[in-house]
Amino acid sequence: MIAVLRIGHRIGRDQRVTTHVALVARAFGADKIFVSTKDEKLEENIQSICKKFGGNFESSTGCEPKKILKQWAGNIVHLTMYGDDLEKSILRIDKNKDLLVVVGSEKVPAYVYESADFNISVGNQPHSEVSSLAIFLDRYTKGAWFLKKFNGKIQIIPSDKGKKVKLNNEKGK
Amino acid sequence: MIAVLRIGHRIGRDQRVTTHVALVARAFGADKIFVSTKDEKLEENIQSICKKFGGNFESSTGCEPKKILKQWAGNIVHLTMYGDDLEKSILRIDKNKDLLVVVGSEKVPAYVYESADFNISVGNQPHSEVSSLAIFLDRYTKGAWFLKKFNGKIQIIPSDKGKKVKLNNEKGK
Repeated sequence: MIAVLRIGHRIGRDQRVTTHVALVARAFGADKIFVSTKDEKLEENIQSICKKFGGNFESSTGCEPKKILKQWAGNIVHLTMYGDDLEKSILRIDKNKDLLVVVGSEKVPAYVYESADFNISVGNQPHSEVSSLAIFLDRYTKGAWFLKKFNGKIQIIPSDKGKKVKLNNEKGK
Repeated sequence: MIAVLRIGHRIGRDQRVTTHVALVARAFGADKIFVSTKDEKLEENIQSICKKFGGNFESSTGCEPKKILKQWAGNIVHLTMYGDDLEKSILRIDKNKDLLVVVGSEKVPAYVYESADFNISVGNQPHSEVSSLAIFLDRYTKGAWFLKKFNGKIQIIPSDKGKKVKLNNEKGK
């Protein structure tokens, strides 16, 4: 199981970026997202996309990050531009355990660095928690996210020109 | 040369996501970003980060997308979830030519699909223009972004615990 914990989410200011974080989590193979702040609108947005595009991605907002970090039985990876080299660190993670990936917003409290088994950087330049999560999950799953079947009501058919969409029935058949 | 064209940028609403797009462009090996709408605050933000973290990344806002697409002499790639398979398409791109990567916001006009030499999807699930650009540039550069030297005033030293920062002089030495 792979879960993502998004901390420091501010209603209004972070809604779009957190939605992007959640969609990356879903598309790149995670099973669930926890968001620190209660945000019903955010949950609705995420679930509305899941309903259309399929899969069993779960979302839960209003979580207590310290409690989640304390109770998590598997590995904890914190993505930060201050962290250790991605390619080196990823080899050290035991993939038989569940994984919690923590992504912050502006400022991340010190307890996150301390709770994490691995503080990992996706390059040491500033970019985005959205891109860091995507590249990390891409490397962690060895690209397997790409083959995941979602069986949604809406299915996009790859096409070099225009938009090809297949509409499936309720069960995505 | 690799440039990114961000279209449909709305001041206020898209400022953070477009900033993330620009930072991903810079960190993953692009040389320049064009943004459709004039936004001085956005340019200031991007240039302030470049000043601190180094490199020669350029940004230009208030560009006319149709004109840029028409005048671009190299390849044009449009990233869209409706596009053709990433891994397959990327092999068809001639890397000896300059590259323009177009990323949209909510709704992308039809002329973009038509102007592009390649409409490419980073998976056919909804996620984010930020993650699509990162994964695309990662594949296009075969991970070479990771080795790029920026020689900035601020240099982050990879570390498994805490934050290690090296401050260089004006020339980043």
